[in-house]
Amino acid sequence: MTTPKPPYYAVIFPNRRTEDDEAGYAAMAKRMVELAASQPGFLGMDNAREDSGFGITVSYWDSLEAISAWRDNPEHLEAQAMGRSKWYATFDLHIAKVERSYSFKG
Amino acid sequence: MTTPKPPYYAVIFPNRRTEDDEAGYAAMAKRMVELAASQPGFLGMDNAREDSGFGITVSYWDSLEAISAWRDNPEHLEAQAMGRSKWYATFDLHIAKVERSYSFKG
Repeated sequence: MTTPKPPYYAVIFPNRRTEDDEAGYAAMAKRMVELAASQPGFLGMDNAREDSGFGITVSYWDSLEAISAWRDNPEHLEAQAMGRSKWYATFDLHIAKVERSYSFKG
Repeated sequence: MTTPKPPYYAVIFPNRRTEDDEAGYAAMAKRMVELAASQPGFLGMDNAREDSGFGITVSYWDSLEAISAWRDNPEHLEAQAMGRSKWYATFDLHIAKVERSYSFKG
């Protein structure tokens, strides 16, 4: 993921899936990637999920205001409610200001 | 991963493995988890890797000084050199100050 020169913001979202509703979860996840990418201030996203059900999504944003607006997006709020009631066993959210960054291509 | 009340720091490390030396990589990764956990200021780590070779590791630290000391740890420096020469096709590093956090248990 190419990000601009810092500072920018990261939303770190480590999470563990329940074993419920894989199809519904997959459809939501795909839609949320599209929807996030259309929001003002969105810079990009990294995502990795293991077969164990544990995954980490990191999204990058240009400001805290952009993150708040994304949090309060009505369609995203619906997905968040479904996430708590059905899709996620546990999750953490860390909102962080990126102060330095570095990339490597071998 | 239980983290303390913010502020604390996160090192976000999205990376893509080469297809080389899985055994050597696995041994190093296991050792680096142990070694990081023994460093002053270490708060914890989240890790997810997909079968595709893409993975994200996030480690949490109590200060930028702790992160610098970990970066400069001699055994870690050896692993970093091997990572660039052999194990990683690409990676990014984002050093970030966590300003807010939230956890959910369903």
